[in-house]
Amino acid sequence: MTAPTARDQRSGCPISIALELLGDAWSLLIVRDLMFKERRTYKDFLEGGEGIASNILADRLRRLEAAAIVRKQRDPADARSFVYRLTAKGIDLAPVLVELVIWSARHEVTDAPPSVVKTMRNDRTGFIADVRKRWQAGA
Amino acid sequence: MTAPTARDQRSGCPISIALELLGDAWSLLIVRDLMFKERRTYKDFLEGGEGIASNILADRLRRLEAAAIVRKQRDPADARSFVYRLTAKGIDLAPVLVELVIWSARHEVTDAPPSVVKTMRNDRTGFIADVRKRWQAGA
Repeated sequence: MTAPTARDQRSGCPISIALELLGDAWSLLIVRDLMFKERRTYKDFLEGGEGIASNILADRLRRLEAAAIVRKQRDPADARSFVYRLTAKGIDLAPVLVELVIWSARHEVTDAPPSVVKTMRNDRTGFIADVRKRWQAGA
Repeated sequence: MTAPTARDQRSGCPISIALELLGDAWSLLIVRDLMFKERRTYKDFLEGGEGIASNILADRLRRLEAAAIVRKQRDPADARSFVYRLTAKGIDLAPVLVELVIWSARHEVTDAPPSVVKTMRNDRTGFIADVRKRWQAGA
């Protein structure tokens, strides 16, 4: 757990504070890419499918780093380049993303694989434990 | 359940689609006000504590209505004014908000009452069932 930091916040409401960090159209997609899609580099995110602009991506990565949700590190396989990794605080967003998937799959037309959504619904705890296990293994 | 509608979406990813509807700093605060704080009128939201600007509030309410997450109706107690209510699709966001509270209370400095957060953690299902019960009762 990272040490909480005081900021100039609009209120002390935990939902408001979370949205000040994550309440935009892109930040949680970067977290998704790291959590579920094994994307790890700037280029991976840029080519992630939703067409994020490079300047927005750079800004969101900076903010996610500043909030200690992602960590930037040299690529062990290539010291000239960088990879991003979720911190413990970042992987703790897994339940939020799982609930967004369940909600969206229920109420919108999505391409979420029904078998995955079913697992999320019926074995939420096991699904999240698997996500954590993969993260701990360095995925 | 409302009928899903096809839109011009940036991808079919359920998280992306949810963020196209809710990925901003304010929409989920309006949902929070309706779900947990018994705020129901435009004025209630405007005075909600985080200082939302009136034009942004009007825009977000329009978008939440268009997405069938909230419904605007005449106030039964005063036919000249309007109240907002969560739809079934809106109340289905309860697990998302609960997970945001748990995450935020764990990693940030918030004013979330520890006893409430503890209930959310230890009896998540019961907590959400209570939220739904209050909603069904017309809160």
